[in-house]
Amino acid sequence: MSENWLPSLKTDTAQAGFELAVKLSRMAVKITQPSDEVRTRLRAAYEQDSEQLIATSHVVAVHFQTIAAANNWWR
Amino acid sequence: MSENWLPSLKTDTAQAGFELAVKLSRMAVKITQPSDEVRTRLRAAYEQDSEQLIATSHVVAVHFQTIAAANNWWR
Amino acid sequence: MSENWLPSLKTDTAQAGFELAVKLSRMAVKITQPSDEVRTRLRAAYEQDSEQLIATSHVVAVHFQTIAAANNWWR
Amino acid sequence: MSENWLPSLKTDTAQAGFELAVKLSRMAVKITQPSDEVRTRLRAAYEQDSEQLIATSHVVAVHFQTIAAANNWWR
Amino acid sequence: MSENWLPSLKTDTAQAGFELAVKLSRMAVKITQPSDEVRTRLRAAYEQDSEQLIATSHVVAVHFQTIAAANNWWR
Amino acid sequence: MSENWLPSLKTDTAQAGFELAVKLSRMAVKITQPSDEVRTRLRAAYEQDSEQLIATSHVVAVHFQTIAAANNWWR
Repeated sequence: MSENWLPSLKTDTAQAGFELAVKLSRMAVKITQPSDEVRTRLRAAYEQDSEQLIATSHVVAVHFQTIAAANNWWR
Repeated sequence: MSENWLPSLKTDTAQAGFELAVKLSRMAVKITQPSDEVRTRLRAAYEQDSEQLIATSHVVAVHFQTIAAANNWWR
Repeated sequence: MSENWLPSLKTDTAQAGFELAVKLSRMAVKITQPSDEVRTRLRAAYEQDSEQLIATSHVVAVHFQTIAAANNWWR
Repeated sequence: MSENWLPSLKTDTAQAGFELAVKLSRMAVKITQPSDEVRTRLRAAYEQDSEQLIATSHVVAVHFQTIAAANNWWR
Repeated sequence: MSENWLPSLKTDTAQAGFELAVKLSRMAVKITQPSDEVRTRLRAAYEQDSEQLIATSHVVAVHFQTIAAANNWWR
Repeated sequence: MSENWLPSLKTDTAQAGFELAVKLSRMAVKITQPSDEVRTRLRAAYEQDSEQLIATSHVVAVHFQTIAAANNWWR
């Protein structure tokens, strides 16, 4: 994981901040399970599982809270 | 997801902020599972499952926290 | 959901704030599952399920955090 | 639930604040399931279930965050 | 639970704060299930269960957030 | 656990802060289950379980919130 994938928490818009939150939620999974092949296989299953989709949405919400604060809520 | 669906976190009222929190909780699911057909099918099931309804309510609560702070709690 | 059910986050007391947190946790469920009949049926089951009661208590705790901040912790 | 069970979030010590957090986590359950008889029955089961004990501990942690902020972290 | 187990949220270092967070996560369990014998039995099981270990880690994270704020993040 | 594994919450970059969040989420597990052998065995299973990967991502998100605040969001 040597690449620079998180240069900043600043985003131009709230929507870009939300998309960054989605990215952060995925990066933590990628760090724990680095195999693209395994993640792709798991994704095919959990995309059809509403419990896991809600759990993913929850993680995004926590990251969005962090990013929104970092951007002073784009006021 | 090229459309502009989140122009701002500002809302006129606390209730509009709550409704925006519901929207954000759904958008994270939509980004992860973009198929309208699959989401509609999943929705039919989880709407009848109190555990998942509570989990959804939890995600809304986290987003509402963010939005309330963004609006200085509509004081 | 056209009625005005959340005029403000301000409450006179901490206890009234807690009761508002309970209301918010239920409103998110109501928005996702608008049928009174279905919610009543689900309620009969989850009221007897300690896991779901704890999950509900969790959602209330998150909303209470928001409401307490909005009221400057009733200091 | 007409009694006054939450006069304030202020406590003299951090430990008293923690005990108040435990109380709040239980009050949300009590509001959702008011029957003492049902709660006592459920309690006998979940006291033996580590998953539910951890879930309860989680709710206490969220309330303790609120109460600690209300008390300016007892600095 | 009459002993004084939480004199303060202040710690000298971030690491000591993390260890206090672990302690708080356990104290909430202890208050709900005071029997040492039962907790020891449960512990033998959940120590082998990754889901419960992650759930425990989650509770620690919430308490660490509180303790870090109380210590002004040890800046 | 006598070694010094958390000298500070300060990091040079947001990405380093994220990696510290991953470390903290693992340390809480390590404190609860100190056996390297058991953790390695559990890891082989949960790395293949999307529910647990999402739960891990959630814990990372909570710690990242703490670390981001400690670093004033790397502004």
